Amino acid sequence: MNKKLQTVALANSYLLLNHGPVTLVSSVYGGRANVMAASWSMPLDFDPPKVLLVIDSRTLTRELVDASGEFALNIPCRDLAEKVLAVGSLSGRECDKFAQAGLQPFAATQIGAPLILGCAAWLECRVIPEPGNQNRYDLFIAEVVAAWADPEVFSEGRWHFPEASRRTIHYQAGGTFFETGDAFECPEASQ
Amino acid sequence: MNKKLQTVALANSYLLLNHGPVTLVSSVYGGRANVMAASWSMPLDFDPPKVLLVIDSRTLTRELVDASGEFALNIPCRDLAEKVLAVGSLSGRECDKFAQAGLQPFAATQIGAPLILGCAAWLECRVIPEPGNQNRYDLFIAEVVAAWADPEVFSEGRWHFPEASRRTIHYQAGGTFFETGDAFECPEASQ
Repeated sequence: MNKKLQTVALANSYLLLNHGPVTLVSSVYGGRANVMAASWSMPLDFDPPKVLLVIDSRTLTRELVDASGEFALNIPCRDLAEKVLAVGSLSGRECDKFAQAGLQPFAATQIGAPLILGCAAWLECRVIPEPGNQNRYDLFIAEVVAAWADPEVFSEGRWHFPEASRRTIHYQAGGTFFETGDAFECPEASQ
Repeated sequence: MNKKLQTVALANSYLLLNHGPVTLVSSVYGGRANVMAASWSMPLDFDPPKVLLVIDSRTLTRELVDASGEFALNIPCRDLAEKVLAVGSLSGRECDKFAQAGLQPFAATQIGAPLILGCAAWLECRVIPEPGNQNRYDLFIAEVVAAWADPEVFSEGRWHFPEASRRTIHYQAGGTFFETGDAFECPEASQ
């Protein structure tokens, strides 16, 4: 079922986020797991790799990440878009969002937070405590401690989408996404 | 020449960055202007709107932003991709990157840093000093004090790309970009 998981070198893990896809943030504490949708995540550093993530202070995810110091960034494909939207409009305080949205968790390797089946890539992250950022800006800095990708869509440090349903997606607003479009190469700058 | 500029309500300015496009960061201090390419920028807050931007400590842009407390995020279209790449491989210490890459600056309204002609959208930003983030992580937090878009590609809070050459772009690596792909809407989550 997870046979497609292939490890991504930590120094390459920023490439999973570099093009700005939407993410699903999964977390767990005390046996309670949750997942939220987040567009506001990006790389912060290459090696050791770090990421930034904004987590609203009123969310259950915030509570779980504050308590556990961990989260996973899951990068969904287009065929999960409807579930991303569902997750974004439900509250984990009122239901089990995995069950409600039809998302299937599986075990990560370095952190307790689950990963989400069917995504294109996964980053396991451990929070670097920065209370000032967390309290003033809802901003979290975390180190990427493991990274994985489905080799059908990402391998040898590059995305290569076999079909539209497996492209990563970018959230606009009001239930509208963009799929990641065609890749194009620029000739080396001649200057 | 800049007739196409239309103001974007500050509370909507996060929509310009929400889908994760590459940006051109322009800055000026003491009569010296510079521009760099940056994938690592994203929204941090809605209202007042704030953004995050990573600026390597060794760059001229860092020097100019440290001194001026301002920068602009310019969002280029696909037809500027080659110039984005050129800007990413030149050093402002060694040449005038605007001239060298063939980018044309024009005046912003709220900040000294110039905006770049031919882009799809522009955010004028004023740094909120956070020395800890700047020194430890090369991370800048800034407030968006004005925002603009070419109404042919962004209006009434939505992107609508008329043709491929005017789509925004996302950087992968090694001279390869993705264009922003087709938009698609999900039916309201039924849960």
